[in-house]
Amino acid sequence: MDLAKKVLQGDVLAAARLIRNLEDEVEGAEEELDALYVNTGRAQIVGITGAPGVGKSTLLGCLIGAFRRKGMKVGVVAVDPSSPFSGGAILGDRVRMQAYGVDKEVFIRSLASRGWKGGLSRATVNTIHVMDAMGKDIVLVEAVGSGQADIDIARISDSAVLVLNPGAGDEVQMMKAGILEAADIFVINKSDVAGADRLKHDLEVMLAMSARKATETAWQPPVVMAQAVCEKGTDEVAEAALKHKEYLDASGDLQRRRRERARTELFWALENYVKNHIDNMEHGHLAQMVDNLARRKANPRSVILEIISQMSSGGRDGLFAHRTAKDA
Amino acid sequence: MDLAKKVLQGDVLAAARLIRNLEDEVEGAEEELDALYVNTGRAQIVGITGAPGVGKSTLLGCLIGAFRRKGMKVGVVAVDPSSPFSGGAILGDRVRMQAYGVDKEVFIRSLASRGWKGGLSRATVNTIHVMDAMGKDIVLVEAVGSGQADIDIARISDSAVLVLNPGAGDEVQMMKAGILEAADIFVINKSDVAGADRLKHDLEVMLAMSARKATETAWQPPVVMAQAVCEKGTDEVAEAALKHKEYLDASGDLQRRRRERARTELFWALENYVKNHIDNMEHGHLAQMVDNLARRKANPRSVILEIISQMSSGGRDGLFAHRTAKDA
Repeated sequence: MDLAKKVLQGDVLAAARLIRNLEDEVEGAEEELDALYVNTGRAQIVGITGAPGVGKSTLLGCLIGAFRRKGMKVGVVAVDPSSPFSGGAILGDRVRMQAYGVDKEVFIRSLASRGWKGGLSRATVNTIHVMDAMGKDIVLVEAVGSGQADIDIARISDSAVLVLNPGAGDEVQMMKAGILEAADIFVINKSDVAGADRLKHDLEVMLAMSARKATETAWQPPVVMAQAVCEKGTDEVAEAALKHKEYLDASGDLQRRRRERARTELFWALENYVKNHIDNMEHGHLAQMVDNLARRKANPRSVILEIISQMSSGGRDGLFAHRTAKDA
Repeated sequence: MDLAKKVLQGDVLAAARLIRNLEDEVEGAEEELDALYVNTGRAQIVGITGAPGVGKSTLLGCLIGAFRRKGMKVGVVAVDPSSPFSGGAILGDRVRMQAYGVDKEVFIRSLASRGWKGGLSRATVNTIHVMDAMGKDIVLVEAVGSGQADIDIARISDSAVLVLNPGAGDEVQMMKAGILEAADIFVINKSDVAGADRLKHDLEVMLAMSARKATETAWQPPVVMAQAVCEKGTDEVAEAALKHKEYLDASGDLQRRRRERARTELFWALENYVKNHIDNMEHGHLAQMVDNLARRKANPRSVILEIISQMSSGGRDGLFAHRTAKDA
């Protein structure tokens, strides 16, 4: 639990190492995360979602500055592979260096460029936990900009920010995907473009009519006008996020959300477990079962029954790739 | 196994009923599907993917006619909620009636409008199996037009068709998503629009350079020019699909693909099992575990260990919602 201890003291190198170890499934990494987990839950998780090209990265860059000016420690998880925060060694480093590379209280990790075995959503959650445990006050998560992955980001956020552009017609796509309903703060970026006022009006009408007003939550999602420069709108978005956190604390919604998130996370972890189990199954045996399926000598349900009974008889053995004595 | 028997005889009403029963998780439906499964694998599954608005539905409508003219029996699974084939009672019925409503050898089902509990991908697979078992020669699957869902459709297809439009810039999005590599046939729809020739050229260059040439498969994906009317391109696409099937048969790729698909399907079914297990868990106990997680009194891994050991001790009980004596 060496890394865990250092992470809890805010050690940047230890945090980076642990995130990488989790990714590489290094022995003991899961246990380190377990040790951290009970110390998490302090940071506010802010998800930034929106279609590709709406300016999520720029807004995120501006928000780092806004929260830093308030003296807050900031973590950033970039999930979008096209984000400059994810941009590999050259572009990415340059962006980070220029803006916040020398600021020790800003910790930026990109998940985009790597092939997380446990799935991107779970990787995001793990990275958030590490940043939370290392003492970040706020963790900004930049979503990938499409469909399910974005909804997942919204689900694991305390506050979900949805960035839209005038005239892009994103609203319809977003509404379809269910992100519109999950957002707590709306940002109209490129608000100097024609149609921005109209979009703001439409959003406000839609929000006023939406079912959310009638249900548990009394939070009225603000619609903030912004431009892809830090001067306009950034501070308002930061303020809205902090106000939303106050609301969450006061209303009890925070506990509700976090319970929901714990359930989501639990399911992802279980899913990952099943995936691992299949991957780790004795190769010949799995191949035989799949072959029987492909040749229609068996049906999927009978094979599942066999796998489950295997899991059962195997008990806890092989449950996780890297067990330590403590689990036995 | 009454429905199953009728489905195998090509009974349309029985097939529609079984699909609905599977959706509603009616007792015995899974067993009926099991009984069918060993009789599937004959139909060619053709997935139609592409961004929203490229003209998937129109092409699909035209393809039904093209395959019917060859005397083939056609099944259609519409996953896209915006497809006219999915369009609820009024629009959808009108489309179906007008075109093929009186043709008994065309069977169209939409999955889009309903909330399949087991997930859309699994619902698609189940519906395909039923159509396959009822004797359809070809099953056309219309994808939803975005991200993972489309890749899933491509994965469960024998032949994946990717529809593109000139100037839409979809290629980049598609390439990012990995669909470009999964496609067996490319269709440039709206080929009368400027840029169509350029897109065709670019695609052909890209395909020539792609890694696929060097690997197992010698199939050279054709690029077909089409227009959103049935006259142009439809027959070429149908021909390409049939030629691709011949190639699959001759090369042994069909077996390879179907083994891969069986593996995918097995995983989806297992995933569904885990979801069901959690949903069916005694409510208070699950709530307690989630609460412990949210309050950081436990970590996800320890909870998983508990759930798995529960599954184990529960044995096969409660494994599927609807068991019959035969499973006991």
